[in-house]
Amino acid sequence: MEIARPYLLFLGDVPDALAAKTAIGIVDWRKDWCLGQVRMPGCAADTGLPDMTISEGAEGGAKTLIIGAVNAGGRLPENWVESIVEALNSGLDVASGLHVRLGSILAIKEAAEKNGRQLHDVRHNTTSFATGKGTKRSGKRILAVGTDCSVGKKYTALAMDKAMNDRGYTSSFCATGQTGVFISGRGAALDAVIADFISGAAEWLSPETDPSHWQIIEGQGSLFHPSFAGVTLGLLHGSQPDAFIVCHEPTRKTMRGVDTPLPSIQDVIDMTIQCGKLTNPDIRCIGIAVNTAALDEDEALAYLAKVGEKHGLPATDPVRFGMETIVDKVSAEFGAP
Amino acid sequence: MEIARPYLLFLGDVPDALAAKTAIGIVDWRKDWCLGQVRMPGCAADTGLPDMTISEGAEGGAKTLIIGAVNAGGRLPENWVESIVEALNSGLDVASGLHVRLGSILAIKEAAEKNGRQLHDVRHNTTSFATGKGTKRSGKRILAVGTDCSVGKKYTALAMDKAMNDRGYTSSFCATGQTGVFISGRGAALDAVIADFISGAAEWLSPETDPSHWQIIEGQGSLFHPSFAGVTLGLLHGSQPDAFIVCHEPTRKTMRGVDTPLPSIQDVIDMTIQCGKLTNPDIRCIGIAVNTAALDEDEALAYLAKVGEKHGLPATDPVRFGMETIVDKVSAEFGAP
Repeated sequence: MEIARPYLLFLGDVPDALAAKTAIGIVDWRKDWCLGQVRMPGCAADTGLPDMTISEGAEGGAKTLIIGAVNAGGRLPENWVESIVEALNSGLDVASGLHVRLGSILAIKEAAEKNGRQLHDVRHNTTSFATGKGTKRSGKRILAVGTDCSVGKKYTALAMDKAMNDRGYTSSFCATGQTGVFISGRGAALDAVIADFISGAAEWLSPETDPSHWQIIEGQGSLFHPSFAGVTLGLLHGSQPDAFIVCHEPTRKTMRGVDTPLPSIQDVIDMTIQCGKLTNPDIRCIGIAVNTAALDEDEALAYLAKVGEKHGLPATDPVRFGMETIVDKVSAEFGAP
Repeated sequence: MEIARPYLLFLGDVPDALAAKTAIGIVDWRKDWCLGQVRMPGCAADTGLPDMTISEGAEGGAKTLIIGAVNAGGRLPENWVESIVEALNSGLDVASGLHVRLGSILAIKEAAEKNGRQLHDVRHNTTSFATGKGTKRSGKRILAVGTDCSVGKKYTALAMDKAMNDRGYTSSFCATGQTGVFISGRGAALDAVIADFISGAAEWLSPETDPSHWQIIEGQGSLFHPSFAGVTLGLLHGSQPDAFIVCHEPTRKTMRGVDTPLPSIQDVIDMTIQCGKLTNPDIRCIGIAVNTAALDEDEALAYLAKVGEKHGLPATDPVRFGMETIVDKVSAEFGAP
């Protein structure tokens, strides 16, 4: 799945910014891929991009309308259908991260067929993956792992990709979740793959590349999450990372959505190495990325210093303090660019 | 998915017994559920059941025609369609473990609709599973795990279920693969579940039950198999087993289908406990089941004695020497029935 650019971001008439977090995430990381935003009357979200109509977007050269907002339940509101059909009639593809498939709505399906346009449902995989092979591929890989779900793995991987590029490494971000797919323009929502093909899909997502190229792979779930650890393990095996970054949220007490207590950072380091060495015997931890949003700056700095010292690794908050110390670690362990 | 009984086993015109191994597996374990077999001219497989036509089966009370044979590629041979349609017209449901969905063949779909009959595609899940919760359920559970795929996990679980029943325990077999589903009449092919729902499906497969009841759960893959470990981990977390049996084939050098070396039995015991304690802190290994088919009887006995002593656990070949010693271990660890 390759999503054509530039994007036109559709925000619908969502009642708040949270409902448009996909669009906001795209603008955070790929503003230069975005031409503008389309908002319906009543829309309370704003990405800061120029407002435009669909026809203005099409005239400006937009190639894909991204449904960058969700309503509760992941359904497609009926009053959004007209805009989507208009985009298809204007020559744009349409991409969505909603649960419902775009093509399941007759008017959208017919408009796509009539205009020969692509519909991308990033929550649904149309690619046929092979089963994982476990064979070593050329190139270098960093995987973001976590003590839990929703602790900043995507943000960490994107920040690491940017920091490595800024320091002269060649690197690319490999998406494994729906917002990540829009940000990379390619990828697959790994949680939607058929179970037998998880590691095969992860191999496809981080294919053989130039020996000096770094793939920075978005993580999913946690090896210690009783709902999703299977996805995490398949991703770890398929990614065969040379290095990983542990992501953590220090105020959380139980794993997201369940009663299971949070593992320690050391538990995650040990288990990731133990499992990961199956497909990369040299796997190692290169840093700890902490979401310190709940702490004030002094608390955050003290916490990071303590965690870093305890594990003998650079510890940072990617949002507050950047990824420089972890890129330093890459340079020390694997060489300068 | 509940498959109505008795079964009528359809063997088609397959050229050898291997192609009918699903039917043969059903007869090995559930002969009393089977009324007879339907063979086309040229069929070289034989389950030993009485031969009958579809109309004889229907008159005899058969409720479901089981497609108990496969051709290369998992496709449905065109010359089998007429028999399947005849079964539907005779009032039978039809169940298949082929890759192709029965309902994707128009004549079969129409006959099922016309007669109000069920089509069961056990490789495809129609059940909507929840994500796993990791909450402790009442009842006791034993999971078969393996050093590799295809080392006898299904056979071990079925033999353990039978041996425990024979010794006065109440137990039931929980299927996680397609042949197992026919043998249990219920279940799901776990490798065909969407990745996010692996452990949730495993929880559904081994639901809350009477505290004294034992669920004996068919294993899948191996925690050390780079293609399928994600499925194995999700199954382990969802099953929350009190006890597990390690299955092993002593002559294998690399994991099935890949170049990865086989783990040791001790590796599997350690990793299963380490991961399994997330959802059951008391998880323990109760025995080792070895497929000794490649060894003569003296070699097999010597190997089992050596492995048993090394790990301080009962070691047996379920086919050659039965499961008595492992049931003894259950009795010692968890009490008599």
